[in-house]
Amino acid sequence: MLSMIAYGISIGGTVLTLALRILGADETLTFGISALTILGLAYTLGHATEQLGLAAGPRIGGIMNATVGNVGEIIIAAFLILDGKIGIVHASITGSIVGNLLLVLGASLLVGGLKNGVQSYDAGTTGMNAASLILATIGLVVPATFAFLIGGGEGTAPGDPQFFRIEALTIGVAVLLLITYIAQTWFFLRSPESPTSAHAPEEEPAWSWRTSLGVLLASAAALTFASEVLVHTLEPAVASLGISEFFIGIILIPLIGNLAEHVVGVTLAYKNRMDFSLITSIGSATQIALFAVPVLVFFGLIVGNPLTLVFTPLEVVAVGVGVLIASYIALDGRSNWVEGLQLVSVYIILAIAFFFLT
Amino acid sequence: MLSMIAYGISIGGTVLTLALRILGADETLTFGISALTILGLAYTLGHATEQLGLAAGPRIGGIMNATVGNVGEIIIAAFLILDGKIGIVHASITGSIVGNLLLVLGASLLVGGLKNGVQSYDAGTTGMNAASLILATIGLVVPATFAFLIGGGEGTAPGDPQFFRIEALTIGVAVLLLITYIAQTWFFLRSPESPTSAHAPEEEPAWSWRTSLGVLLASAAALTFASEVLVHTLEPAVASLGISEFFIGIILIPLIGNLAEHVVGVTLAYKNRMDFSLITSIGSATQIALFAVPVLVFFGLIVGNPLTLVFTPLEVVAVGVGVLIASYIALDGRSNWVEGLQLVSVYIILAIAFFFLT
Amino acid sequence: MLSMIAYGISIGGTVLTLALRILGADETLTFGISALTILGLAYTLGHATEQLGLAAGPRIGGIMNATVGNVGEIIIAAFLILDGKIGIVHASITGSIVGNLLLVLGASLLVGGLKNGVQSYDAGTTGMNAASLILATIGLVVPATFAFLIGGGEGTAPGDPQFFRIEALTIGVAVLLLITYIAQTWFFLRSPESPTSAHAPEEEPAWSWRTSLGVLLASAAALTFASEVLVHTLEPAVASLGISEFFIGIILIPLIGNLAEHVVGVTLAYKNRMDFSLITSIGSATQIALFAVPVLVFFGLIVGNPLTLVFTPLEVVAVGVGVLIASYIALDGRSNWVEGLQLVSVYIILAIAFFFLT
Repeated sequence: MLSMIAYGISIGGTVLTLALRILGADETLTFGISALTILGLAYTLGHATEQLGLAAGPRIGGIMNATVGNVGEIIIAAFLILDGKIGIVHASITGSIVGNLLLVLGASLLVGGLKNGVQSYDAGTTGMNAASLILATIGLVVPATFAFLIGGGEGTAPGDPQFFRIEALTIGVAVLLLITYIAQTWFFLRSPESPTSAHAPEEEPAWSWRTSLGVLLASAAALTFASEVLVHTLEPAVASLGISEFFIGIILIPLIGNLAEHVVGVTLAYKNRMDFSLITSIGSATQIALFAVPVLVFFGLIVGNPLTLVFTPLEVVAVGVGVLIASYIALDGRSNWVEGLQLVSVYIILAIAFFFLT
Repeated sequence: MLSMIAYGISIGGTVLTLALRILGADETLTFGISALTILGLAYTLGHATEQLGLAAGPRIGGIMNATVGNVGEIIIAAFLILDGKIGIVHASITGSIVGNLLLVLGASLLVGGLKNGVQSYDAGTTGMNAASLILATIGLVVPATFAFLIGGGEGTAPGDPQFFRIEALTIGVAVLLLITYIAQTWFFLRSPESPTSAHAPEEEPAWSWRTSLGVLLASAAALTFASEVLVHTLEPAVASLGISEFFIGIILIPLIGNLAEHVVGVTLAYKNRMDFSLITSIGSATQIALFAVPVLVFFGLIVGNPLTLVFTPLEVVAVGVGVLIASYIALDGRSNWVEGLQLVSVYIILAIAFFFLT
Repeated sequence: MLSMIAYGISIGGTVLTLALRILGADETLTFGISALTILGLAYTLGHATEQLGLAAGPRIGGIMNATVGNVGEIIIAAFLILDGKIGIVHASITGSIVGNLLLVLGASLLVGGLKNGVQSYDAGTTGMNAASLILATIGLVVPATFAFLIGGGEGTAPGDPQFFRIEALTIGVAVLLLITYIAQTWFFLRSPESPTSAHAPEEEPAWSWRTSLGVLLASAAALTFASEVLVHTLEPAVASLGISEFFIGIILIPLIGNLAEHVVGVTLAYKNRMDFSLITSIGSATQIALFAVPVLVFFGLIVGNPLTLVFTPLEVVAVGVGVLIASYIALDGRSNWVEGLQLVSVYIILAIAFFFLT
């Protein structure tokens, strides 16, 4: 059912976005349609990857799912970097991590707990993800403190005297995050009882590998096109809607790239399949922090618009408190609906602060 | 024994405070006597509530105990808000949370551990309280960071350009804390094995419900009167004693509102009834943070002296480190006397810092 | 094998350092030789203490091992205090804590995990050490915040108007850390199943107590001499090598004082004896924070070059994040190689930041 809607939006949306673009239609409308299209395409792409993974066997499939998971957000962020909108990229990374850890995880625990009472999950897997998130948070806190101490800030760019040192630290952090990501993925795929690998055996692929590969390539191409349209209509849309670019970065873009996946996460919690639900929330946040962030840092270097890891103070605080409370709650391998409410409350506090900041 | 002393102080102290007030006696003396009176009345009020709760059945009784627990501190803080002494209210909230989490919990683990060796308690209940305290800490960290970034501070008041945004964030946080408090209380009262509900069955009420209600109303009225006297003799008393108002707020007021309860907490630990002991320390800190804070925010709005949640940096650090070490220590469901010593040490470090700050 | 090399370095190095000093040789060379000599002597001293402890019985032996463990670093830091190089002392304390918690613990978990898979250890002992480290971190965060708020900083010295208040807070923290250290050591030595006391029974002393005492006294004397040479050749060596004094303090001095011990920690993890391995990493960090820090504060007072506990912001962040991630990872009593990699990654991030700071 969800799938059918997503496919419809993917195809119809892509055609419509293309038409609006060619006709040079109202940019706010084009922005809205492209956002909706990306939402559908992210789901379709994820589904095609999963199907291809089922055909390829659990190990390769696991790696593929893990890598493609946040591809929508990465593509949007890449176009933002090309446009030099580094501040919005920082905001959308913050929003993705915090959204997954507080809003999606919170909603999952809330809905799942109200339906099923106290729920259990594997504390080991969650604990490793939480430790990786703490590492990633440290990878944001240290450059921010460092930049503050040497007199730089979020806006430090090539040419500023502090830039070289901040960029060196940024690249060091990016390399270490990526190494940890590869190590952790390798560890999960090799350990026999991990939920990632236990995933596969139960299901048979519904599509042939040719179909899967075709859908994958087509939706990736469409996603790239729609993201380009989204980023280029962002400025006029923002101007006509009267919201700040920053707020769009922190709330809207993470939602667009991930909404379908979020629905899946909450649905899994409702069905009391907590280990799989946590992969779409905590696991997704880990992926953004350890995989998307370094990839975008390297992309920025290549295209000559470097993405430093110097986030604004409230962004650092947001990621810090989000990781802190989520890792504390996830520590005991059991959850209830009050814990879900606590996480959602922190998300709303942060959203209010970001809304009034500008 | 403790009860008899408390009743004596309640009745004698109220009469004496009234007499001193009418005679216009020395204000430092009046301040001291009213403080002592509040100490006794807080105990009497708590006992009457407990008796009434036993008559009303475990569910209603639990809700009543939870609500009345910190009523002494709330009444004092309300008079301070009426007087516009927002800084002292911030100090007394900080002092209450930190005092319960570090001094009372620390003394309980220390005394209990020396008497009984390693002690056990229900990690689930404690963990949920700790998560709520982390939420409440976030509810202080985010407004403080926010105010700093937009150029406001603890003293931001109606009329300042930043006031509206800080107040909006404050109200948002207050509403979320209160919702979490209601949800958590509901969760505890419904779960069959929680210590709050297991409380009741063992005891028979010693007082009839008429007696309980009468004592409750009388002691609440006397408490309100004595608090009004305390707050109005605060300034001259401070001037003649030579201590800073701030230090009175952070150390003395929390002690006055809670000392009797603290004695109970340590006594319970000594008797190896850790689950009940933790309700009077961690549970009380949670109640201040999730119930007293929002109530005081709404009260401030109504009377036109808004209480923002922008605490001073050292207050934010104090609550942050207090919650951090207490939640870490409480995580494993076991305690020993060294952990108690660690908590008390942190309290003393903070007390020294606050003493020398002014 | 390791022992033989260490003894050779100890004797040869001491003679050579003495010769270079008398001949007035090149100071960079003298610096290098004295550093190498300290490395060997720290091992020899540790071994002699262990032997003497085996002869003296488990209780006294445990106390001796715990006290002598970081004597090399304490002696070097004492000479730095005599020289008034308070900034380097702060750096070397930070480097010791962070090096033990991230580099040594990380390398142990990494090597041990790759060899032995998931490893287990006693979570209780580790948890108490972690709580002590959180206490020590609070003992750095509070003075740093305090100094910032009253307008002081790392360089505040006798004569400055803020000095008295900062020093009073420093002494308070030092006394509390030392009390906690004594209490914790007492607790471990008395509890029958602790790894510290379980240590002794398996082994017979290889040396007579006369030999042990002789070696202990001789190596302590040689260590003092070599440390004095190291500190006095530090400035010219730094000038000729082109590295900052600060970087030497944070990376090199902790390595010199501890390298041999570090090798032992990793070796024990490789042999799957995790409880003993954690004593040389987490236990050693705890010892620096709770024992070496107060001893150095008191030493500074006596010799008239007071060591305040106001560390620089990046040092406070380094200790804070190091303690945070190490205590989170150590919480569950199980470890794997990915956790080791995460810890080492944080160490490298901090090292890059410190390298580029100056």
